[in-house]
Amino acid sequence: MEKIFIIKIGGNILDDPNKKESFLQNFASLPHKKILVHGGGAIATKIGEQLNIKPQLVEGRRITDKETINLVTMVYAGLINKNLVAALQAMQCNAIGLTGADANILSAVKRPVTTVDYGFVGDVAKADVAVPVLEKLLDAGLVPVMAPLTHNKNGQMLNTNADTIASVLAVALSEKYLVRLLYCFEKRGVLLNVDNDTSVIKFMDETIYQNLRQQGKLVKGILPKISNALAAIQAGVAEVIIGDAEDLITNCGPEIKGTLVK
Amino acid sequence: MEKIFIIKIGGNILDDPNKKESFLQNFASLPHKKILVHGGGAIATKIGEQLNIKPQLVEGRRITDKETINLVTMVYAGLINKNLVAALQAMQCNAIGLTGADANILSAVKRPVTTVDYGFVGDVAKADVAVPVLEKLLDAGLVPVMAPLTHNKNGQMLNTNADTIASVLAVALSEKYLVRLLYCFEKRGVLLNVDNDTSVIKFMDETIYQNLRQQGKLVKGILPKISNALAAIQAGVAEVIIGDAEDLITNCGPEIKGTLVK
Repeated sequence: MEKIFIIKIGGNILDDPNKKESFLQNFASLPHKKILVHGGGAIATKIGEQLNIKPQLVEGRRITDKETINLVTMVYAGLINKNLVAALQAMQCNAIGLTGADANILSAVKRPVTTVDYGFVGDVAKADVAVPVLEKLLDAGLVPVMAPLTHNKNGQMLNTNADTIASVLAVALSEKYLVRLLYCFEKRGVLLNVDNDTSVIKFMDETIYQNLRQQGKLVKGILPKISNALAAIQAGVAEVIIGDAEDLITNCGPEIKGTLVK
Repeated sequence: MEKIFIIKIGGNILDDPNKKESFLQNFASLPHKKILVHGGGAIATKIGEQLNIKPQLVEGRRITDKETINLVTMVYAGLINKNLVAALQAMQCNAIGLTGADANILSAVKRPVTTVDYGFVGDVAKADVAVPVLEKLLDAGLVPVMAPLTHNKNGQMLNTNADTIASVLAVALSEKYLVRLLYCFEKRGVLLNVDNDTSVIKFMDETIYQNLRQQGKLVKGILPKISNALAAIQAGVAEVIIGDAEDLITNCGPEIKGTLVK
């Protein structure tokens, strides 16, 4: 099977012009089929404040109301996505910016209301990914750049977590490709000691994860990332690696920096 | 040659929810290859005001400064484009939203500074259209929905007039397709008497245009539209029609409502 890289970047790269430039250069030179998935970054919050759109929280969870979905559609699909695409085009990388609505790449179901109504938030599943269209774009030499947005197939845009989008694309594409899913974040990997950057855990599987968790050795913030990664592996993704963008993207061979989840 | 429709809509449709819904229904059912090009609409001005971005005018011409290009990238490529795409997807039309940066569909040159520096405004030419990529998207059954934005191939998004984008796409695609270019606006066509909606001039060519113009029979606002249309015809576009969206799009045969430019 042909190899494909699915790479998720978040605010730590989007909000730092130097890191962004360096990441995009490395991404552009990656000699494989590839998809970039980006998150939001601080600019969405800043523009939201300027537009006087206040973050809505219910029981500590963020709610996507009508104003907020319009805000993130502007900022994620417009400002962030198109500037990434233009930057990649300048580096001879034939990027094409997409949301889940475009070419119906990824539809979603509005999250069911339980005790909390999350508003315009979309939950996705493997079957919602339009694999044949993605294949056609990839075969045409295009590099999809995905904003963290989906649609409900009934005309409404929905907010979907970028980690989740990267994961569902990886799972769906694993039927056709050998997928390496890279979760880039502000650390060099999952750390045994969060204050020591050299304490990267090189390898993680379900057993190691449960052991470390029971021993209380993992900081709370990393748990969803690892559990997402393990879910992707169980659903057929070849490799998931968690770590620093530059480490992960400049080491494409078998020797891996960061935490390999398998 | 296969037929393709390139349809430009502006604020009179984007700003009116009923007109928009009805137009999109008609567009979705059009049984031909097709491309939608949209303009800005009142929402860009409104959000600009909320963000305190004041329209910059130099010698009466609108200037696209840094803040304004970011604003229109958000509003045109994000809010307007993605909501059009999601609406079309709900009508079983496999829309894909694009700017000129995406897949390098349309690059541009920043307008040269003469007496006025227009800022981040892009001028385009036939050779800047990536016809092979557009063909691949169309052959994959996708329907491009173009926002009025281009890029300079050096990482910068640029503002480009939607009429001009529609025209340059029409000219470039005329080498491969029989192009019908539709300019939808608030009138039923070019009117001999601007106060009389039944005075539509059915047919227009260079000679008729020059005669009417010399007789002072055309209102000033329509002159650039006709002159764009005639330029497109001279550059090889099969047909250009100027008129009301519903008239133009529900009459796809040889009997044409609106003003046929040929």
